Amino acid sequence: MRLDLKDYLERKRKIVDQALDKYLPKEKDEPKIIHKAMRYSVFAGGKRLRPILSMASFELVGGKGNSILPVACALELIHAYSLIHDDLPCMDDDDLRRGKPTSHKVFGEGMAVLAGDALHALAFEVLLRAKRLDVISEVANAIGTQGMIGGQVADLEAEGEKVSLSQVNFIHTHKTAALIKLSIRAGALLGEASSEELDALSRYGEKIGLAFQITDDILDVVGKEKIIGKKTGKNQNKATYPKIMGLEKSKRIAKKLVEEAKEKLEVFGDNGFILKELADFIVNRAN
Amino acid sequence: MRLDLKDYLERKRKIVDQALDKYLPKEKDEPKIIHKAMRYSVFAGGKRLRPILSMASFELVGGKGNSILPVACALELIHAYSLIHDDLPCMDDDDLRRGKPTSHKVFGEGMAVLAGDALHALAFEVLLRAKRLDVISEVANAIGTQGMIGGQVADLEAEGEKVSLSQVNFIHTHKTAALIKLSIRAGALLGEASSEELDALSRYGEKIGLAFQITDDILDVVGKEKIIGKKTGKNQNKATYPKIMGLEKSKRIAKKLVEEAKEKLEVFGDNGFILKELADFIVNRAN
Repeated sequence: MRLDLKDYLERKRKIVDQALDKYLPKEKDEPKIIHKAMRYSVFAGGKRLRPILSMASFELVGGKGNSILPVACALELIHAYSLIHDDLPCMDDDDLRRGKPTSHKVFGEGMAVLAGDALHALAFEVLLRAKRLDVISEVANAIGTQGMIGGQVADLEAEGEKVSLSQVNFIHTHKTAALIKLSIRAGALLGEASSEELDALSRYGEKIGLAFQITDDILDVVGKEKIIGKKTGKNQNKATYPKIMGLEKSKRIAKKLVEEAKEKLEVFGDNGFILKELADFIVNRAN
Repeated sequence: MRLDLKDYLERKRKIVDQALDKYLPKEKDEPKIIHKAMRYSVFAGGKRLRPILSMASFELVGGKGNSILPVACALELIHAYSLIHDDLPCMDDDDLRRGKPTSHKVFGEGMAVLAGDALHALAFEVLLRAKRLDVISEVANAIGTQGMIGGQVADLEAEGEKVSLSQVNFIHTHKTAALIKLSIRAGALLGEASSEELDALSRYGEKIGLAFQITDDILDVVGKEKIIGKKTGKNQNKATYPKIMGLEKSKRIAKKLVEEAKEKLEVFGDNGFILKELADFIVNRAN
């Protein structure tokens, strides 16, 4: 089966954007400034990769209808909150994200902290619409110190230090891959996957999650600022694959991870083609 | 009925502290530094007022056993997260809290942001133990832009500005009273309160919540730094009751609110005596 991936991504992105617009408080609602700040970051041109992965996973295991949408959007709200806090001067100190000034550059640092906090709380509010305690539990766990935040902590601690490959793997699998794996798992859980399917998709999620971060760091070295929309070459004193083993080897590893991820989908036979294309997209993207 | 309030508070505080110790990741678990930072702020000597209010409300409506404990602790984790972020240089810029250096003074700003985020996520993880979607929904709502964060936004915007009494009321009812009212309501919901009871307790919660913040701002003017444990006189350019209407009138209003709160408990007859004492404690405390 062949998929027009560009068309697929565009179609899903529109559905996610419409739902996000519905779930986010309106700019005219008080206190206006925080709602403006929340919408500014959420609608800054993200690819909606995490929601799309959760939807693709949901549909692959036989999920029907729109019950995945609140979960998909909650994942994007969490992603947006983590980026706002990550960009703060006391963290990565980034002025630009997706070609636009970061939240604290536009709204000030205090408001950026609150906008992140508000998106974090809103994510759980939106998530509740799915009425699934098991999914909420997976989310809370994946974004805590055993997941996303744990990775951010290790990343902050590694700054300027000499780090080993195992430390880099810890950072990547926690900071980035945890949320991507969660997206895949949440879709599978909501779609009532069998335990065999859930397991296969979890392994797939881990591998594309790591491949995603390696590709991000490769793009930081070779990518075009205009296309990526943020300052490149910023991760020179960060713990990355390109820094530890060079560009070419990093590219090979990312591609190998994607191949391994795709193999995990064999249990789905031909039906796995969308997630296979999404895996390829993760390493072949230009931004 | 008479209550030895000091003994009651101490007894409940110990139960809450033991449960918090159980729910919080250990300092020896990786990444150690964030768990240390989380525990540092949670065990910095708080009164555990919000958990205690939720437990008292739970017991008043007939709740039995320990099922309230995860909810009670989640409220304290949320309170701790909000204080860490509130104390940041880009927010209230406080160096001292409860007589100890604030989180960012000890762990750095980046780690303080993450410690707040981690407590926020952990609160939902702990809350899930109660297995009550309605309670999680109340929590997410009360701490979002229509509740606590909305109040923090208005507070940040009001800094240095001339503000009206209605603006001050907006800030207080959102920033402080929302979480206190939530504590009372969460206890009532978990204890299976009737709608009449829930309504009475909600009104009680709103009133003591406002009285609590007015008293905080009075203590900022007249309190002893050594007892309060933070720098006093800091709220001079903040929107407060003492600033708008003077100390004496503010004290009278706080006392009146407490009397009104106690009246709301009439529906419980004699059984309401613990929440009545807790209401008195809120305006009579020295820190």
